[in-house]
Amino acid sequence: MESRNIRLAVIPGDGIGTEVVAEGLKVLEAVGTKFESTHYDLGAARYHRTGETLPDAVLEELRGYDAILLGAVGDPSVPPGVLERDLLLRIRFEFDHYVNLRPVKLFPGVTTPLADTTPADIDMVVVREGTEGLYAGTGGVMRRGTPHEIATQESLNTAHGVERVVRYAFEKARSRPRKKLTLVHKTNVLTYAGDLWQRTVNRVAADYPEVTTDYSHIDAASMFFVSQPERFDVVVTDNLFGDIITDLGAAVAGGIGLAASGNINPEGTAPSMFEPVHGSAPDIAGQGKADPTAAILSVAMLLDHLGLRAEAARVEQAVADDLVDRLAGGAGRATHEIGDEITARVSG
Amino acid sequence: MESRNIRLAVIPGDGIGTEVVAEGLKVLEAVGTKFESTHYDLGAARYHRTGETLPDAVLEELRGYDAILLGAVGDPSVPPGVLERDLLLRIRFEFDHYVNLRPVKLFPGVTTPLADTTPADIDMVVVREGTEGLYAGTGGVMRRGTPHEIATQESLNTAHGVERVVRYAFEKARSRPRKKLTLVHKTNVLTYAGDLWQRTVNRVAADYPEVTTDYSHIDAASMFFVSQPERFDVVVTDNLFGDIITDLGAAVAGGIGLAASGNINPEGTAPSMFEPVHGSAPDIAGQGKADPTAAILSVAMLLDHLGLRAEAARVEQAVADDLVDRLAGGAGRATHEIGDEITARVSG
Ligand SMILES: CC(C)[C@H](C(=O)O)[C@@H](O)C(=O)O
Ligand SMILES: CC(C)[C@H](C(=O)O)[C@@H](O)C(=O)O
Repeated sequence: MESRNIRLAVIPGDGIGTEVVAEGLKVLEAVGTKFESTHYDLGAARYHRTGETLPDAVLEELRGYDAILLGAVGDPSVPPGVLERDLLLRIRFEFDHYVNLRPVKLFPGVTTPLADTTPADIDMVVVREGTEGLYAGTGGVMRRGTPHEIATQESLNTAHGVERVVRYAFEKARSRPRKKLTLVHKTNVLTYAGDLWQRTVNRVAADYPEVTTDYSHIDAASMFFVSQPERFDVVVTDNLFGDIITDLGAAVAGGIGLAASGNINPEGTAPSMFEPVHGSAPDIAGQGKADPTAAILSVAMLLDHLGLRAEAARVEQAVADDLVDRLAGGAGRATHEIGDEITARVSG
Repeated sequence: MESRNIRLAVIPGDGIGTEVVAEGLKVLEAVGTKFESTHYDLGAARYHRTGETLPDAVLEELRGYDAILLGAVGDPSVPPGVLERDLLLRIRFEFDHYVNLRPVKLFPGVTTPLADTTPADIDMVVVREGTEGLYAGTGGVMRRGTPHEIATQESLNTAHGVERVVRYAFEKARSRPRKKLTLVHKTNVLTYAGDLWQRTVNRVAADYPEVTTDYSHIDAASMFFVSQPERFDVVVTDNLFGDIITDLGAAVAGGIGLAASGNINPEGTAPSMFEPVHGSAPDIAGQGKADPTAAILSVAMLLDHLGLRAEAARVEQAVADDLVDRLAGGAGRATHEIGDEITARVSG
């Protein structure tokens, strides 16, 4: 391909974020795609140094890239929510990442905590809404610290916001062999929002006659993720339920060290952002203990998103091969060793 | 004991609710406690017949009982939320059931979907708040059915509501060998509500120096329920997170057929209500396939709540013995056979 270089913004962030992103970039390099990357120093360290989370000028600069690779943000030294809201969620919102795409897939050779479960049982994609719901951040507090305190949070859901992510999920379902879409919500309690979601799925379903649709309450779905994960093919759900269920999905599919995600702006009006589902894990940061696989699989998602499907497939295959190998005794490796191993497979 | 009879209101409800409640009452009878029960015909059938969910007069009558035993409510023939909100949640709210107590315990002999997990690993109690949060039902919809629709839901949290359930959870933690309390929330996104919960736990913790406190985001907790359930002893959480995590807990502890719960008004200003965590399961209703164990364990919780600890322990022991027996080949029994078996053990 004679195309211009891919321009990548890299936000290593906090804790193990830095370590796993380094391995992701190693693999990206090995894939042979021409790219140039610029590192952005955002996260706890910058916050403590300058009080800044995401300066407006930096946000505007980020807008110019083809994609963003993020490690993880969050540190116990920063009050809960500050980096999450003002950095991570701000990017998701400002860049209209309304699809938070999270594959839940058990790779061969990976140990799942579920007994009698094989890769054929766990192969789904969660399409989590990324810009609405309880993540809107609206709400407030009155009489804080008194016995009469009231604290509220609001879940905001719009026809616009729900329909576009539901359509994306139907497209995804149509492209997969099973062609099944499950809406996960809590329509029997969150009656206003649930009604909007359910009506939207019903309406859009008419445009996708080949897709089977199904519904599960979030509580039942959490149970089924453990007891019958094979029920699910594509799951579409709101921001908060998607947050919960994808961590659960990561757990059943062999752990958070393997779970990749894409924050996608499908229309490309702003760059999409790829990141491991795991957090910054300050407890193991700097020790070379983090598994970079999720970051590397996020790089594969990034390549795929940019249309480099063959390159994405090579990275995924290298990871798959490496995972089989771990079972055969390759466990206990340091972060960079796993990265080197996968890099070698990609190059070879 | 020469005390007066226990006065019990029974709401079998919909679907398998009727079937499992019948077995629960059989066991209660066998325990030898003097009680008189009155059945209330509430649920889908009544709704279709009369349009009523819970008439005010019935609600006031229910107030006069010592306790309520409920089967399950909900039916696909009724719009989502109607029976849930106007019957089940209305009772929880009107009778101030601010503690929704849900043990998550793996009984010996029970098959968990988790590999390499034993009863020693899963033995916790979830203290779910029962009267606030997103269950308040506030919110609304504007421009319904148009491309400009907005649907909102509100989570309402008060110092009063949070502190009382947190105190209950600390008491519970103090009474258990491990004395560990984990707050589960999403403080990094639900910053207003999360801050109230976290500050309340911190403040109340000062009164319970012997209790170790811990915090986990709901997404991480969902993962840990599967990968490291032994992390948890007592979990305190809000209404919605509690709903999700207790179904997940039921799944890891051998299935929803075994999960009991109590909707508790600790001050006794109104009767507490005991119910299996499972729903009405219309797909298997009337076929004798439902497992009545959760309803029977709910009867044990009811007895315990009324101070009949020896009787409660006998029922729990009978269930435990029966569960070991199932492993030894007693599986595949009908609802009434399981009920008969446990009844016989209680009587014997
Ligand atoms: C860090 C946090 C705000 C974030 C979220 O809740 O979305 C994380 O849990 C995730 O899933 O990406
Ligand atoms: C039926 C429903 C309203 C209820 C709830 O969400 O509380 C149920 O799921 C439960 O957990 O008791």
